[in-house]
Amino acid sequence: MSHYSPAYSITIRLRYGDLPGGLGKITSAIGDAGGSIGAIDIVSSLDGAIIRDLTVQATDVEHGEKIVEKVRSLEGVEISNVSDRTFLMHLGGKIEVISRVPVKTRDDLSMAYTPGVARVCQAIAEDPDASFNLTIRRNTVAVVSDGTAVLGLGNIGPRAAMPVMEGKALLFKEFGGVDAFPICLETQDVEEIINTVKYLAPTFGGINLEDISSPRCVEIEDRLRKELEIPVFHDDQHGTAIVVLAALKNALKVVDKEISELNVLINGAGSAGVAIAKLLHSVGVNKMIVCDSKGAISKERTNDSNTLKAWIAQNTNPENQTGTLSEVISGIDLFVGVSVAGALKKEDVAKMSNDAIVFALANPDPEILPEDATENVKVMATGRSDYPNQINNVLCFPGLFRGLLDVRARDINAEIKIAAADAIAGVIADDEVHPDYVIPSVFDRRVATAVAEQVALVATETGVARKGKPAQ
Amino acid sequence: MSHYSPAYSITIRLRYGDLPGGLGKITSAIGDAGGSIGAIDIVSSLDGAIIRDLTVQATDVEHGEKIVEKVRSLEGVEISNVSDRTFLMHLGGKIEVISRVPVKTRDDLSMAYTPGVARVCQAIAEDPDASFNLTIRRNTVAVVSDGTAVLGLGNIGPRAAMPVMEGKALLFKEFGGVDAFPICLETQDVEEIINTVKYLAPTFGGINLEDISSPRCVEIEDRLRKELEIPVFHDDQHGTAIVVLAALKNALKVVDKEISELNVLINGAGSAGVAIAKLLHSVGVNKMIVCDSKGAISKERTNDSNTLKAWIAQNTNPENQTGTLSEVISGIDLFVGVSVAGALKKEDVAKMSNDAIVFALANPDPEILPEDATENVKVMATGRSDYPNQINNVLCFPGLFRGLLDVRARDINAEIKIAAADAIAGVIADDEVHPDYVIPSVFDRRVATAVAEQVALVATETGVARKGKPAQ
Repeated sequence: MSHYSPAYSITIRLRYGDLPGGLGKITSAIGDAGGSIGAIDIVSSLDGAIIRDLTVQATDVEHGEKIVEKVRSLEGVEISNVSDRTFLMHLGGKIEVISRVPVKTRDDLSMAYTPGVARVCQAIAEDPDASFNLTIRRNTVAVVSDGTAVLGLGNIGPRAAMPVMEGKALLFKEFGGVDAFPICLETQDVEEIINTVKYLAPTFGGINLEDISSPRCVEIEDRLRKELEIPVFHDDQHGTAIVVLAALKNALKVVDKEISELNVLINGAGSAGVAIAKLLHSVGVNKMIVCDSKGAISKERTNDSNTLKAWIAQNTNPENQTGTLSEVISGIDLFVGVSVAGALKKEDVAKMSNDAIVFALANPDPEILPEDATENVKVMATGRSDYPNQINNVLCFPGLFRGLLDVRARDINAEIKIAAADAIAGVIADDEVHPDYVIPSVFDRRVATAVAEQVALVATETGVARKGKPAQ
Repeated sequence: MSHYSPAYSITIRLRYGDLPGGLGKITSAIGDAGGSIGAIDIVSSLDGAIIRDLTVQATDVEHGEKIVEKVRSLEGVEISNVSDRTFLMHLGGKIEVISRVPVKTRDDLSMAYTPGVARVCQAIAEDPDASFNLTIRRNTVAVVSDGTAVLGLGNIGPRAAMPVMEGKALLFKEFGGVDAFPICLETQDVEEIINTVKYLAPTFGGINLEDISSPRCVEIEDRLRKELEIPVFHDDQHGTAIVVLAALKNALKVVDKEISELNVLINGAGSAGVAIAKLLHSVGVNKMIVCDSKGAISKERTNDSNTLKAWIAQNTNPENQTGTLSEVISGIDLFVGVSVAGALKKEDVAKMSNDAIVFALANPDPEILPEDATENVKVMATGRSDYPNQINNVLCFPGLFRGLLDVRARDINAEIKIAAADAIAGVIADDEVHPDYVIPSVFDRRVATAVAEQVALVATETGVARKGKPAQ
């Protein structure tokens, strides 16, 4: 299955003689090559020659190249330039730093800089917590990565991770009004990462960890949470877990099952799988099995040195089931896949309970495609935008940090995570909930606001807020 | 001498009966208290009572308080609020992070974030230098401080240093179009600072060190320059030195003296003093003495463990003069003070040569006030905006980094610093140079452009540029 995507769109600048049917010949060729034409702009028309920019979507990079070759082969058509819109969009980076105050005159400068700034510095020196009010800490989060687990690309290093962190900063601002700044670190040593983030903390009101490989990410987050005065959140773990819980809450309404009675199987024991297991555990899921590539994790398995798997063995799989995914999936009500494409077979899904729920979150290709699920599946969600019920972390982190910053929170606790999930789920009214609508759209503007309000409230109630939510 | 300053301006909201002469009584009281009234706004007028906001400049904080007390003592006048405009300006910080690309639709997201971003990441993974084109590195500088030597406030720590670094970021953007992000570090350990900045480097195209105490700042800068792929610049050292050299170049035209013949005395052997000495040394100043609080530094003095002073002893004071400032100032053509208020006495100035040049840069109060200089002084400059010839680093760093980023420079060498000084000086045409106009105004928009062009050119000529200056 291939989809056209603006992610693979190109703009072809070409020149051809202004004769009847000239453009038609070109657009036909693009159509024959399977390209989807978007904008057609004229650049100039001079001396009987026309120069145009044609924007064409392809299904992948190679497809784009084939389209260009097809057009290039046409007689009387010269291609002067082919530009890749995605790369053009990234030239010079995707974010900028601007002033919130005027700096046009000496008077402006004397307040925003010397000598006026000295009094503000002194006020913070006397009361360091004033930095949460008088500096960018009030609204600024660091998006920190070491580049060890970027998207599905693996350990590509800090420079190559930057475009993702910049993208994340865009989403923080667009959906949460949060100023986020990307920080990609030239070290993959756990202690050095922890120290560096600790040293950076006076600049920020919160830390969003991102795309750090497992299980290192868990230690890094745990240590930083203990040592810092600001909230630390590893989005790949808890963002995913929160959105899964939100989708589950609404899915349970569709299938009319109780969370305490639910048989759950999580496939994938990386940091996301464990975070999902922990969050589901904290909201009353008792019957849960976590599988890794070797099958069900249980107390019987003693060869796991990984501390994450030790938690799983102690806290899940009460009946000590053993075996492969296929061997333990019978009667499962909820499958959550955070593993690899194709990990869930049609015959395995068929063994699940009636009115089963399948969250197949492997990206970009899920554990099973919705069209391959069997009839006993009632609710299905994936990480993709081209199927119903997209589980996407952007539903959580902008509103979460908006709420945390609003009350100058010190930490993120379990209650806050659950509140965020409730807020996301609650955006869909009970009478709107539907098998294809258990989770709001990523563009639903109500989500971040609802999450921020609940997070601020619960942070205050649980004593991790420095102040009440500002009235403004 | 006290000056009104918007840095000490307050807005008083008050309520009084709408009777003839009501406002006059209030403005007279403010005038009597020595306040300078700016804006008078009406907030509301209801039931015979008027509420107004009066913006009043004072000369310092205590003066502002006295003005408020004077108004409060008036019969029939109620003060409901007094706000400090400088603090108001700092609420929530002075900078924000915004998007340079649209993120309103799924199509936008698919290019700026997943899945499109993955191709950009891969391109950088294959060619790490592509990060200088495809990420914010192309236009972004870190302003890094540990808060150990902030303005004249000393070691106030990283949180309290933030407003200064945010202010610096404003100036970078306003004058150089450079995106600058403040980073204040929770460590004052030299090794930890060096490591942290090294780890941050993949995010940035340059590092501006700021307000780090001497002599630590010199080691930190030297080590980082050697170890990083991007330019590192400690502004307190080299920014000051570059602007001093620029002012000197024009001052020499006024007094018609040759740089190689100049007798120079630098008072202050902190990092700025040493940087000035080194830069003047590199442009041919042979006859130079540097004094610290104990007097002239020479090879005779063997009790200096400070490495900066060792350089001074080896490279200046060829005649091994000893003694206090007063004892070595006879016949000096150029005095540069980077020391403390009042360090230069009237009787010392009188001993300088005819057509002497005095740069008294201690802030906020110079080594000697211009009105106290003797007649033999032909050109005088200070760090203040309320006298002619303000030596201000903002003349240098925005244009310097603009030029460095434009050619993706790896380093800042001596040739680049001299080029920057030449560019600043060159903004003033030969026939415009005047004793009161040896250095352009900080608001002269030609400066940053001129500096950027020369810096880009010389970086390319000296082989530290990754690419030619872009045509755009």
